[in-house]
Order: sequence, then C-alpha cells, then structure tokens
Amino acid sequence: MSTLENRQFKLISRPVGMVKRSDFDFVAEPAGTPGPGEVLVGVQYLSLDPAMRGWMNAGKSYIAPVGLGEVMRALGIGRVVASNDPSLAVGDTVVGITGVQDYAVAKARELNKVDPRLAPLPRFLGALGMPGLTAYFGLIDIGQPKEGETVVVSAAAGAVGAVTGQIARIKGCRVVGIAGGPDKCRYVVDELGFDATVDYKNEDVAAALARHCPKGIDIYFDNVGGQILDIALAMLARRARVIICGAISQYNQLETIQGPRNYMSLLINHARMEGFVVFDYAARYPEGMQALAGWALAGKLKAREHVVEGLETFPDTLQKLYRGENFGKLVIKVAD
Amino acid sequence: MSTLENRQFKLISRPVGMVKRSDFDFVAEPAGTPGPGEVLVGVQYLSLDPAMRGWMNAGKSYIAPVGLGEVMRALGIGRVVASNDPSLAVGDTVVGITGVQDYAVAKARELNKVDPRLAPLPRFLGALGMPGLTAYFGLIDIGQPKEGETVVVSAAAGAVGAVTGQIARIKGCRVVGIAGGPDKCRYVVDELGFDATVDYKNEDVAAALARHCPKGIDIYFDNVGGQILDIALAMLARRARVIICGAISQYNQLETIQGPRNYMSLLINHARMEGFVVFDYAARYPEGMQALAGWALAGKLKAREHVVEGLETFPDTLQKLYRGENFGKLVIKVAD
Repeated sequence: MSTLENRQFKLISRPVGMVKRSDFDFVAEPAGTPGPGEVLVGVQYLSLDPAMRGWMNAGKSYIAPVGLGEVMRALGIGRVVASNDPSLAVGDTVVGITGVQDYAVAKARELNKVDPRLAPLPRFLGALGMPGLTAYFGLIDIGQPKEGETVVVSAAAGAVGAVTGQIARIKGCRVVGIAGGPDKCRYVVDELGFDATVDYKNEDVAAALARHCPKGIDIYFDNVGGQILDIALAMLARRARVIICGAISQYNQLETIQGPRNYMSLLINHARMEGFVVFDYAARYPEGMQALAGWALAGKLKAREHVVEGLETFPDTLQKLYRGENFGKLVIKVAD
Repeated sequence: MSTLENRQFKLISRPVGMVKRSDFDFVAEPAGTPGPGEVLVGVQYLSLDPAMRGWMNAGKSYIAPVGLGEVMRALGIGRVVASNDPSLAVGDTVVGITGVQDYAVAKARELNKVDPRLAPLPRFLGALGMPGLTAYFGLIDIGQPKEGETVVVSAAAGAVGAVTGQIARIKGCRVVGIAGGPDKCRYVVDELGFDATVDYKNEDVAAALARHCPKGIDIYFDNVGGQILDIALAMLARRARVIICGAISQYNQLETIQGPRNYMSLLINHARMEGFVVFDYAARYPEGMQALAGWALAGKLKAREHVVEGLETFPDTLQKLYRGENFGKLVIKVAD
C-alpha cells in the first residue's frame, strides 16, 4: 500500500474573498491503509461544487468546516483498490467524499457503489449524483410544481439548474432559464428543452424575464443570489415559491453579502422562500436516484460535463467555477 | 344630510421618506348621502396602522394605492347615522374602511356590525379587529406553532405583536418579545404573560436573544424588518418558520430598504420565510374572530389601546406610530 503516492490539496488558510492557490498546500504522501470497515479508493474524477467555498469558512453551517491542515473536502468517484470490508470488492466503482487527492481511505458504508456501464463516470457526480438529487428534492419537495406554472431557474446551464429545468418540463411547467452567454443559452433551449432563456451577461434581466413570464413567476429556483434574486422576487406571482439552493454570486464576498431587498414581495404575494441542502433528504436518496435514472434512460434528462485534466489544476479550476467559466458540470479528471 | 360638516384628510402628495403633514390637505365638506345599499357612518375611532405608509406609495402592492386627492384610507369604527340598506339600522355600530374623516358613505356589505357592549370600541380596531386577525392567521396558519417551541415576536407591545405572543403562549410555546423601552418590556411580561423580553433600545439584541433562546428560534414573527430580522435569521433552529407580517422600520425608506443579509440561514437550517396580509384570509375571518373573542372572554387575551383625541391630529399621530411612540394599539378618537 505504502508504495502508492498520494498527492493532496490541504487547506492551509481561510480564504478572504475569492479562493486562491495560496490557500492550499499541494503535497504528496504515501497512501493510507484501510482499517476494519474501510476501503482505499483510487480517485478517478473529482466534483467541483459551489458549496466548497462555504466549507472553507470557519463559521457554523450545515456541515463542519474543513479544518486547517486537512485535505480539502470533495465528492469523487473512483475504483476500490484495496478493501477491508466485505461489502466492497477491489474493482468496484464508488461515489463519496474522497477529498481532493489521488487516494482516499473511506468507510465502506459512507460510499455508494454505482454501475459504471450505466453512464460516463462524471455523470455520477452531476445529473445522476448530488446535483441531480439537489434539483430533484428542491423542485419537487419545496417547489411542488403544478402543470402550467412558470418556473424560473438561475445558473440554468449549471449542474443543478440544468436538471431542475428538465424536471420542471417533465412536470408540465413552462421553464425559463437564466444563463451567462449565448452558448449556454442556446444549449439550455436547444439541448435541454427549456422554453426560453435570459442571457444575464448580455440582456436586461428584468425586462427579459418580464417578457418571458407575463403572468409572473410561480417558482423561482435560485442558485445565484444577489441581483438576480431581487429581480425574481419583484416578479413573483401569488403564492409563489422561492427555493434557496445556493448563492454562488455571493460565496466569495460573505462579509458584504447582499440581502434580497425585495423580500417584502413575499408579503404582497403571500409567497414563500425556503432553503435546503441535499443532505436534508438523505433518507430519500433512493427515491430521487430512481426518478433521475429513469428519466435519463428514457432520454428525458440530458447532461453535459466539463472535464479539466489533472489534480494539480484544482485551485485554478475552482476559480473557474466561481467565475462561471465552466459549461456543464465541472469535474477534474484525476486518473483513468 | 348636507348640514353635517365632514372634515377629511386627503392625500395630496406621495411622501418621500417619513410621512409629513404637508402630504395631506385637511378640508371640510358637507357629508355625503348614502345611495342604494349604502349607509352613512359617523366615525368614532380611527385605526392607525403601519400599512398606511405603503398605501401612500404609487407602486403595485396587495391593495391599490390611495389616489392623489382622495381621502386617506383608514379602518374605523362608528355608528350608522343614515341607512339606505335593510341590513343596517341607524344606531348600529360598524367596523370597516371609513377613511380619515368624520363621516363616511360606505356599502353596507363592506361593513361589519359589532356589539359595542362586548368590549371598548377601540378594541374592535385592535385585538378584536384586523390586528388580532393578522396575529391569528399569521401565527396559526403560517407559523404552525407546536407545544414547547420557541417563538420570538418583534414589536411585541404593538397591536399585532401583543396578540401573537399571547396566542403562542396559549398554544404552549415559550415566547420572547422584542419591544422598545422598559415600560413596554415590563408590560409584555407582566401583563401579557410573555416568558421574556428584549429591549431593543437598551440591550444588545443578539446577545439577549441568544440568552433567551438557547435552542434557537423555531418561529420568528416579524413586524419590523431591518437589523432585527437579520439577528433573528442568524439564530434560527432547524425547520424554523419566519413570518413576514410587516417591516415598520423600513416603511419610510423604501428606496434604501435593507434586505435580510442573513437569508442564507434559510438554506443552512432548511427554514422557511413566508409573507401574508390579513386580507388573504378574508374567507376565514369568522373562524379567527370566534377564537379571539373566546380567548378574550376567558381572560386569556389582554389588550391595551393608545387613544389620541381629535381627527385633526392625524398626520402627527401617524408619525408617532412610525417612531414607536405609541404604547398599545394606536387609535384616534374622532367623536363620542
């Protein structure tokens, strides 16, 4: 075991503002040895998620912060290379929290075994993984979409947004996606089947949304926060639901976070704003996975991944995520 | 009819910032004559409500703005002095939208007849009127209080807050009220039976709330907005409910309204923030009135009114409301 070299990104300082290369130490150590109930996973792909920025902060949140000196937390998919638990065999493909490294020692019961023949591996980190489940539970459980309603999704070309919009379409809603740039907007309509898009980099978002949502917004699924959340709030229909899934525009500026100034629209329209994280629904993951896999097999759930090669690119690739430069679910390919 | 002099406050300009005397014209005209289905009401008490400031703005809201040149909208209670509808007789006591004037012509079906022997007249504009119903539906329908939960109410000595806290106590909750100044705080605990209070004018609200809510806040009933809403958001318990009933701290500065910067607490705690106005529950008013009257008769629902004499004081009295200088439901006595 000890002959395997394990490169790792360790968090060494709490970022102020945008995350930086110097917030991490990139070191190599021998891979660990799995104890009883544990396995050693050879990481193949790592998921880059907006939530990572929050995990780096010291403050209380829904999950403990990454400690200084610890390997940066990340979801990953890989192959079991050594097993000390009867439930997993060498060669099995598993998804779980591996951290940003080549090899992870993990508890077998905290990993999920997947069938690599069903889909390309990165998809298990996207539409068929946490982002897909996030979209599913946020929209279905909190949004409660009804046929004919108008659903607006921000970061519509992103890992969560793309799935959210497609599920809303499956549920018979009219879906408007907000995305950055003509390529993403074209993708959202032409490939994912949204009814309309707003290019927030090149259009007046308020005017465009008003045009696409003449009867107001029944469900707004927010991944971005900031100005776009405020614009959506101002356009709510009566009894609207606002799903707070993320606030990627704000994650690197928490000290000056912009609260939604139009929140009194909730009062005027008897509307509801509710937040969640996917872990709240852990007990219902099987339900969500079954629905997502079924739609994917039926050709109703399209997905796209943005693959960057090389573990060593991690800090730069993470910045790319916050700058919105990825197109599709952003993953790092660590090994074949 | 035409011999009755009817003094009126007409809105003549849209206030910028705090409402001013010069936003109104105070004129006298002969009282109107009720047409078919209408009555003439001699106003005895007028209700001063935080919502009035919003009615003066031009923008879209849950109710049409008061038009320039029109009598300022207000709820009032008074006696029928002339009737042109079989459902109401001269001498009946009625509650409804009378406007800020001595005599109102109103549709009989838009007035509610009350029994003046049941309570002092101003109470029908407070605990047994719209503010009481607002407290009832906001807390019961949106808040869904459960025994043993911690409920925090802002503007706790105000017309809505006082009833909200008492209902929460009736439902078996631990209730913490936020009020301004030692007199109001004493009243909230000693007279209304709240478990604890925070004096926002003389205490560190965050520290005091943390002391009184060691397990976090399950229900926050917000009447004030601004900084206090943010402090409460930061202390939510899991699955908390935030009821947006008003934002009196913000009504006179709508251009620079402060959005709740801690709204991401909704995500962290899977919490819900929902707004409403009492008119949303018009179909259920009888249910609410029955509950409120029952508790009042049983001695479980205490109330206090702050009576200012004289219709002519209206603009000054309204400012008093926004400065928090009233103690109890603020009403103007127009006539005996």
